[in-house]
Amino acid sequence: MTLPLMSGSPASASAESRSIRVPESRLRRQTELILEAWGLPAAATECAVDALIWADLRGIASHGIAMLPIYEKWRHAGRFDPQARPSLLRELPALAVYDAGSGFGFEPSRVAMRKAIDLARASGLAAVSVRRSNHFGAAGHWAEMASDAGLIGVAMTSTVSPSIVPTGGRVARLGTNPIAFAAPGADSPPFLLDMATSTVALGKLMVAALEGRPIPTGWALGLDGQTTADPQVGYDSRLATPLGALPELSSHKGYGLAAMVEILSAVLSGSLLSFEDGGDDTRGNVGHFFMAIDPRAFRDDDGFSRHLDRLTRTLRDTAPLDPDQPVRVAGDPERDRLALSRVEGVALPVTLVESLRAVCSRACCACVLA
Amino acid sequence: MTLPLMSGSPASASAESRSIRVPESRLRRQTELILEAWGLPAAATECAVDALIWADLRGIASHGIAMLPIYEKWRHAGRFDPQARPSLLRELPALAVYDAGSGFGFEPSRVAMRKAIDLARASGLAAVSVRRSNHFGAAGHWAEMASDAGLIGVAMTSTVSPSIVPTGGRVARLGTNPIAFAAPGADSPPFLLDMATSTVALGKLMVAALEGRPIPTGWALGLDGQTTADPQVGYDSRLATPLGALPELSSHKGYGLAAMVEILSAVLSGSLLSFEDGGDDTRGNVGHFFMAIDPRAFRDDDGFSRHLDRLTRTLRDTAPLDPDQPVRVAGDPERDRLALSRVEGVALPVTLVESLRAVCSRACCACVLA
Repeated sequence: MTLPLMSGSPASASAESRSIRVPESRLRRQTELILEAWGLPAAATECAVDALIWADLRGIASHGIAMLPIYEKWRHAGRFDPQARPSLLRELPALAVYDAGSGFGFEPSRVAMRKAIDLARASGLAAVSVRRSNHFGAAGHWAEMASDAGLIGVAMTSTVSPSIVPTGGRVARLGTNPIAFAAPGADSPPFLLDMATSTVALGKLMVAALEGRPIPTGWALGLDGQTTADPQVGYDSRLATPLGALPELSSHKGYGLAAMVEILSAVLSGSLLSFEDGGDDTRGNVGHFFMAIDPRAFRDDDGFSRHLDRLTRTLRDTAPLDPDQPVRVAGDPERDRLALSRVEGVALPVTLVESLRAVCSRACCACVLA
Repeated sequence: MTLPLMSGSPASASAESRSIRVPESRLRRQTELILEAWGLPAAATECAVDALIWADLRGIASHGIAMLPIYEKWRHAGRFDPQARPSLLRELPALAVYDAGSGFGFEPSRVAMRKAIDLARASGLAAVSVRRSNHFGAAGHWAEMASDAGLIGVAMTSTVSPSIVPTGGRVARLGTNPIAFAAPGADSPPFLLDMATSTVALGKLMVAALEGRPIPTGWALGLDGQTTADPQVGYDSRLATPLGALPELSSHKGYGLAAMVEILSAVLSGSLLSFEDGGDDTRGNVGHFFMAIDPRAFRDDDGFSRHLDRLTRTLRDTAPLDPDQPVRVAGDPERDRLALSRVEGVALPVTLVESLRAVCSRACCACVLA
């Protein structure tokens, strides 16, 4: 199985020069055409388009339209049921459980987070678990649904294969298991953290390999279990380190966080662990965890969001190490990139455009990117 | 303000040789005598003794009896109201809010986590927020209350002063803001993560300084904002890095996690941010966040705990890099240490014993350690 690659990574100037700029509307239309051709119902397509283009516009190319060639492979491998709709298995005032029926992960995630928000408005907080799902795109997209609604949001997911090596080990056991956390400000923009629990995404290794640039000690291990500076070795091994990178820099903490996400996403929902496969059953069985908390259930009026503004303003005002690089808050870089993308469009590497053209051809739909 | 030091760190062999071994019963009795002499009510004393000795028995010396000399200073500075009792401000089926009245943090934490457990048993999950509290010891102690009750537990806290430097900054803005997460197994021991969101605790710098041993690049910054290998420089500056240590190893993730904990602990409860002080009001105003989740509300019977056993067993079975050092799961090292402490007692450095003897003398109570 191939992992999402940062094919459209803006980090690479040389890649940039071999790219074309595509406006948001055309990116959306292209994604829509492909998913419709694959037989997704309209509601599922809409959720997927929103989630994938949300990521592209924010510079998170690894979770945008570049996923479509990978989804095509997964689709052929029987991982997705395009017709599946999420079904509600149980509901209490502060929790719900959905079965995604091995469909694409986007519609179940939107339905689940909407349910979490609705329940939290009445109960103060709510957690919603999703089983038998698939890749849900960027976790931050779901957490942001809650902050857009004035609530605190949490989104986590397990993954379809292990790539994080436990501290002291030499094989991968856990997914890159992301954590997203969003909180609404009053006058300042929301706080929006969206992080894999690995040190870096595997896509960063691929970009470094393309550029022939050595990688920092601690990003990845070779098959001998030793940390490597060779990006190709690290990329080929698919042995990523947990956040913390090295035992002496407390990689056991990132390892613990990755396991925590696997517990809340896969174990709580009863989905496959990242190192488990379903045997003959190739259908997707990834678990998600969503939570919404209404701060007004804890504090009166807008006390929470004004207090959060004080925190984020002070963080941004921190004396910087480099006077030209002000300190940022989680979510700031992606918000800047969004503003730019709305003006300039999104740069897609021509290799990705070619790959998407081939996907369109096989799906018998039009390619409208260029 | 002094931060907790790992005075009794078992890492240092030279410190070990200048230490005495004290059995659990005597550690408990000594802590009880001091807190009673300070005028704490019996219930508050019992909670504090349990929490502090819990840490010492597990090798977390920085959050054990070594805190008493620091608490003494905080008490004289007017940070604690020894007579305070936690009061319930609001309660819903899935949440509650307590005011700790600037008392010691232990009784409010036990009351809050008990409330979270009780509510979660009825509602499936519950979050409890505590405002106007103080240091609550090791976060893992509170998360473990939930796993002991067969539930998933979360505990977080803000701190009384900033020591984590935001990525790209040169001054500290966030506390070491710990996250604890516990989940109950069926036949295997629970998963118990308890981690500061800094790369390492400041106490580790002190131990390195005492031993004249250089520290790894990325543990701490000097006052110039640059990473330092000199433990004394890092300890004196009190500029700790967020988990991830260096920008190229994704320290922005640890920075984001530290901010997330501050949001859930201080902002949600309406307590002081770690960089805020109360002006003329010197009373403690730290916030805690507790959560309990009943896995049986999501999955039938013991499906969750049996599935968790599969995860933790597989993690422990990971092929190790060093055949003599098996891969561990969060909570394993502390459990091993607990078994040892029950046989051997807890090693206290003679410097700490002297310091505690002086505390006893000032509190007019007996010193029973040696």
